[in-house]
Amino acid sequence: MKLGDGVEAAIHCAALLTGLQGDATLPAAALAEYHDLSPSYLLKHLQRMVSGGILESVSGPSGGYRLARPAESITLLDIVLAVEGSAPAFRCSDLRKRGPGALDASAYLKPCGINIAMLKAEQVYRQALAATRLSDLVKEFLDEADPRSVDRGCAFVDARQRQPR
Amino acid sequence: MKLGDGVEAAIHCAALLTGLQGDATLPAAALAEYHDLSPSYLLKHLQRMVSGGILESVSGPSGGYRLARPAESITLLDIVLAVEGSAPAFRCSDLRKRGPGALDASAYLKPCGINIAMLKAEQVYRQALAATRLSDLVKEFLDEADPRSVDRGCAFVDARQRQPR
Repeated sequence: MKLGDGVEAAIHCAALLTGLQGDATLPAAALAEYHDLSPSYLLKHLQRMVSGGILESVSGPSGGYRLARPAESITLLDIVLAVEGSAPAFRCSDLRKRGPGALDASAYLKPCGINIAMLKAEQVYRQALAATRLSDLVKEFLDEADPRSVDRGCAFVDARQRQPR
Repeated sequence: MKLGDGVEAAIHCAALLTGLQGDATLPAAALAEYHDLSPSYLLKHLQRMVSGGILESVSGPSGGYRLARPAESITLLDIVLAVEGSAPAFRCSDLRKRGPGALDASAYLKPCGINIAMLKAEQVYRQALAATRLSDLVKEFLDEADPRSVDRGCAFVDARQRQPR
């Protein structure tokens, strides 16, 4: 099983954006710089988060990105689905309908048990991701991370955020 | 999130192999034919299942594959890990240690909360996969699938299985 590495970048960016004040934004270049990532690599994932309703982008010279809704209503599942798409990890190609065992459609009124079992496990995974909110992660970071890390993050956001005109 | 399509083929093959009698084996060519898959594609996944202790391969002209242990002690998780490897789907590249927020090692005594949350969700996924045994899937198939499908599968295995000399 594999998650694209964009997921990690996306969660870190969303977490950093919780530090913005009011309706300020942070430009993609600053998000890339803070995480030492290439801006073009990051842009793709930021755009997916915009399409997924997690981020808002403000265009223009004072533009950038900010959360589209409160961190309390953004979950890890929202971010994973925005970046990775909502298709299940297990893709059933209906092998049972192929080869010498294949029968006419009337033999397949019930879905394949293998597919059901795999999707049930994914459902549980998604529920676990949905149980963690961005606000939980940020609170934990603020409470438990080394205070110097918190200070660095806050100072960076303060210095680089832009107030829309 | 993505699972390789080898997982589906691997589960179907393992399920078919439960139909073997005694210490008989089924050649890779028969497994490929039954699922309408290319033998070379399938071989890779069969070999991974052998390495993972799920299948046994018997070499020689009367050789083939059989389960290495009872279907009651093979779970979906065993098959997924054998085919996909055991690395977590979420790979933390420790973004927090990069860029202008980076500090010396003393700032990172606790693991990253994002990594912890992602791995916790995966743990739940793995537990769900581990809760389904190959024998459960086969029993459900025998009980609930169209009887013609069951007959086709059994007849194919009966005709193509080989008794080791």
